[in-house]
Amino acid sequence: MEPSDSNQQRGGRTTVDPEQTAVSDVGEFGLIAHIRDALAGGDAPVDAIRDDVLAGIADDAAVVRAPGASEDDPGGGRVQVLTTDALVEGTHFDRTFMPLGHLGVKALSINVSDVAAMNAVPRYALVTLGLPEGVSVEETRRLYDGFRQAAEAYDVAVVGGDTTSAPRLVLSVTVVGEANADEIVYRRGAEPGDALCVTGDLGAAYAGLRVLLAERQRLQQRREQEREEDFRPNLDEFSYVIQRQLAPSARLDVMQGWREEGHRPKALIDISDGLASEVHHVCEAGGTGAHLEGAALPVAPETRTAADAFEQDVDVYALFGGEDYELLFAWPEDELDRLDAETFTQVGTVTEEGEGVRIRPPGEEEPVPLKPSGFDHFEE
Amino acid sequence: MEPSDSNQQRGGRTTVDPEQTAVSDVGEFGLIAHIRDALAGGDAPVDAIRDDVLAGIADDAAVVRAPGASEDDPGGGRVQVLTTDALVEGTHFDRTFMPLGHLGVKALSINVSDVAAMNAVPRYALVTLGLPEGVSVEETRRLYDGFRQAAEAYDVAVVGGDTTSAPRLVLSVTVVGEANADEIVYRRGAEPGDALCVTGDLGAAYAGLRVLLAERQRLQQRREQEREEDFRPNLDEFSYVIQRQLAPSARLDVMQGWREEGHRPKALIDISDGLASEVHHVCEAGGTGAHLEGAALPVAPETRTAADAFEQDVDVYALFGGEDYELLFAWPEDELDRLDAETFTQVGTVTEEGEGVRIRPPGEEEPVPLKPSGFDHFEE
Repeated sequence: MEPSDSNQQRGGRTTVDPEQTAVSDVGEFGLIAHIRDALAGGDAPVDAIRDDVLAGIADDAAVVRAPGASEDDPGGGRVQVLTTDALVEGTHFDRTFMPLGHLGVKALSINVSDVAAMNAVPRYALVTLGLPEGVSVEETRRLYDGFRQAAEAYDVAVVGGDTTSAPRLVLSVTVVGEANADEIVYRRGAEPGDALCVTGDLGAAYAGLRVLLAERQRLQQRREQEREEDFRPNLDEFSYVIQRQLAPSARLDVMQGWREEGHRPKALIDISDGLASEVHHVCEAGGTGAHLEGAALPVAPETRTAADAFEQDVDVYALFGGEDYELLFAWPEDELDRLDAETFTQVGTVTEEGEGVRIRPPGEEEPVPLKPSGFDHFEE
Repeated sequence: MEPSDSNQQRGGRTTVDPEQTAVSDVGEFGLIAHIRDALAGGDAPVDAIRDDVLAGIADDAAVVRAPGASEDDPGGGRVQVLTTDALVEGTHFDRTFMPLGHLGVKALSINVSDVAAMNAVPRYALVTLGLPEGVSVEETRRLYDGFRQAAEAYDVAVVGGDTTSAPRLVLSVTVVGEANADEIVYRRGAEPGDALCVTGDLGAAYAGLRVLLAERQRLQQRREQEREEDFRPNLDEFSYVIQRQLAPSARLDVMQGWREEGHRPKALIDISDGLASEVHHVCEAGGTGAHLEGAALPVAPETRTAADAFEQDVDVYALFGGEDYELLFAWPEDELDRLDAETFTQVGTVTEEGEGVRIRPPGEEEPVPLKPSGFDHFEE
């Protein structure tokens, strides 16, 4: 007998039955709504049914009460946050320009970022690896070396995982974090009049992606010897934005600093899909609108240089680029002086729900509506 | 700008650099050894360094101390078990004969089985879905319907997840469970003289796979109209083994019954890679050998019928078939009468390490060495 028979299993259609609905027709967030509905099975969501589940699928991470903890305990009792995020070759990264050590860093960072976005402390990680035939043992080790280095930096213990063969490289990571219940910050909680602020700078990861894509195109053209390239980036000149794309850091440092000072934002989310998309999430969760100042968007000089080189608008990078893994938070506007000014930039204010999400472009008098259209893996 | 540029990212070699080591050269367990080594980074494994980590990668699930719990608490303090397992299209299942509702059941069951194999109670699940273009919204809902039904049966709250596009369907699931520290049962702990027992019957999932593969081959031959098929299974006749392959159940029921009776095995593992492989794991973890009785292997009548139809040895199905998700456990041989005889079958005894792992084939006088060679996803 051949127990590896099922290694040979192949199949599956590549187009959707015309009587059914393609995922691209509903988009990523539409699909998530369907999934939440199917998981509820006609009932209310799980966080409305089980009193040990404080938050389910609607936030950056789920929040559950720790075993044996009670809301009558000091700090509202210990809770745990649970989050999972995957990186799929061909969807999230290109192995031709993603060093596998960096991939390990990124896979952990994007999950730790979700824990930071709940104002919790990451504790444990599990990592599932789907490995295609072309990846060697040595490369696999480099991937886990990167994962370990990031785990050490975040003080996370890698306690388990799964390995399997797969047609493309897939990394699916779960991180468990801890906090007191009264430390947790949700997406909801912003109120009209609050300042909307971000940590760090925006658009750099997308700028890095553009630089890498241009470099890949240049290499392809050289191989094909068809024509000269339009623009050849000097990769050394773009080391910051490339690093932001390939091996981002979660902003645990900022959250830890604030916790030590006794600071706690009113609403908090990490910027994974682009600032515009995350502002919409905060507004939807809190029942508010938002006004952004285009001139206030924090952009690193290198990001601006990259956008200029590609003759693109750097504010578009900052608003829609995605993968920044900075934090967006709401804070009472008259108490901003309590925060270290080095750690954040105010990008706007929270408004009434009826005003929607608007942005005043740099140099313009009047604000215009801002669409969420961030990075959507199912977008056409 | 096109934020979906990175959807277009493609690349990656399909053969290993000849100066490096192919994963198939070291096998799945060899790869896991490399990964553990890379994750330790020259240090001891994490469960030897962090005292909140009671068990790391070496068992069915990781065991960590619950937040705020202490080993001085009653029952040794609350602990959590963390486990993750993925199902990848083309490696673990064939979408042409795997109804997506069943796939949801299976993806949760294989993780709950790991929790059962630690003698813990599953509490929370996270599910990451990688979705290829050909899967519709309706099919995705069926997948989560199955997941929800299994979650209800296991009393697990599905609290989070991630969705992304992927070249093939991928389901990566994490389950968090709970127990008192003194309830946890590890792979290690068996001693010479103990009985080796299994729950349920073995080889059924592999029999189901063979039936489904034969049916697929028949359909392909009919399409190609090249020649008549050799054997056409009546699928109704094989509903039990097909169910065991497509939608297995974790044996939480057995563990719960034993816990209520105050019973706790000395060593415990779930049978995911085949009995032979799991016996080797128990022996390696505990520093023992094992003697199995081939005539004692529990096999369902339908499994035998399937093996006979394919002119194959049903004991090979039972020993190497894999995906049974029954439990293998060690128990003091003179106390077997304390267990409900309906819940288990003794398949052998634990021996001294030097005797290795041996099996006495049915009808033979002398035992022969038993190799682990179970289902290995990286096997050639």
